Amino acid sequence: MREAFHDELEAITGNLVDMAQLVKTATKDATTALLTADLTLAEKVIAQDDVIDQMQHELDDRTMRLLATQQPVASDLRTLVTSLRMSADLERMGDMAHHIAKLARMRYPATAVPPESSLTIEEMGRVAGLIIDKVSQIIKSRNLDDAKQLPVDDDEMDKLHRKLIQSLISKDWPHGAESAIDLTLLGRYYERSADHAVSISRRVHFLVTGKYLEDKA
Amino acid sequence: MREAFHDELEAITGNLVDMAQLVKTATKDATTALLTADLTLAEKVIAQDDVIDQMQHELDDRTMRLLATQQPVASDLRTLVTSLRMSADLERMGDMAHHIAKLARMRYPATAVPPESSLTIEEMGRVAGLIIDKVSQIIKSRNLDDAKQLPVDDDEMDKLHRKLIQSLISKDWPHGAESAIDLTLLGRYYERSADHAVSISRRVHFLVTGKYLEDKA
Repeated sequence: MREAFHDELEAITGNLVDMAQLVKTATKDATTALLTADLTLAEKVIAQDDVIDQMQHELDDRTMRLLATQQPVASDLRTLVTSLRMSADLERMGDMAHHIAKLARMRYPATAVPPESSLTIEEMGRVAGLIIDKVSQIIKSRNLDDAKQLPVDDDEMDKLHRKLIQSLISKDWPHGAESAIDLTLLGRYYERSADHAVSISRRVHFLVTGKYLEDKA
Repeated sequence: MREAFHDELEAITGNLVDMAQLVKTATKDATTALLTADLTLAEKVIAQDDVIDQMQHELDDRTMRLLATQQPVASDLRTLVTSLRMSADLERMGDMAHHIAKLARMRYPATAVPPESSLTIEEMGRVAGLIIDKVSQIIKSRNLDDAKQLPVDDDEMDKLHRKLIQSLISKDWPHGAESAIDLTLLGRYYERSADHAVSISRRVHFLVTGKYLEDKA
């Protein structure tokens, strides 16, 4: 019985990793759709968001069932409660990709990102992908040293975000307020996605140690 | 034993309501600080965010302890799991107030909100307060009809948000990109706060029925 339970716990971790992979693909595709005004790809990301949401519900149902039937304590209980939280973070990261894709679709056939900003957005997309990869590994490994590294990558994202905003408020921004609004929102979506990844790394800390790391969000 | 457990469950609901009250005050004060460039009030909201975060940790610890010791099933289990989620939503709503207060502080002694937008922001603050009040009642009452009303109030918030963004992209917006960025972010903070309230209302639906309402976020 307990062995079956531990198989189930491992399956839940596997599902979280699968969810992270879907989020990674969505974020990558959303960035490409945004930078290349690719409507088909944007629509794909938008449709895919339901799959991620559905995955979260199924995962949460399984987690709740184990909470109800297995009376877990200590680390097993933390695994289940943390799973509920990680699935919520991953679902929100999926929403961020969804928002990016919707902005790409809204501006189609134009691109929401003017040439001056496209390198920065591309970088933000790259860093977001890197961060999701690391999160995926940390969910699996529960390695606290790796978890501690995530805020460093998040600093990189914050730097890019500041650079983006700086370019918007420079005197010679030629693209008007609408474009500034689009880029402000895009910047926030990438930044929030990275923040959720940092949240997940903090939850791994809680999972392993039973103690909270302070939230700087 | 079970009676003590049900007292504990009620205490948790009471804590969620207390948390909602703190969030309401923070949101109200942040809006006032923003519109009147009141640095002292902004600092108060910023400091108060730690109190909300701390409350969440304590509440979550209690919830986890009950999960570990009481082997809850069915509606009791849903109460505890939903509490973990609601506390996360309320904490994020607190973060939104915190962000608003930080923007007020950043622009001090100027105001981040130019005169053209101050009525809209004031309205957004008012609707946010109303929504938090309703959420607080729904957490207590678990009334599904009241829970269904929340998306209607959220529509009101979305309308105000669109009005705000429209004014920024009108040709005669005279305040430049920095101000447009500030207002884009402020709009998003109020809108997100209301979205979290809608999430809470959906969680009440899950709590009572055991079924998920679709997430439109």
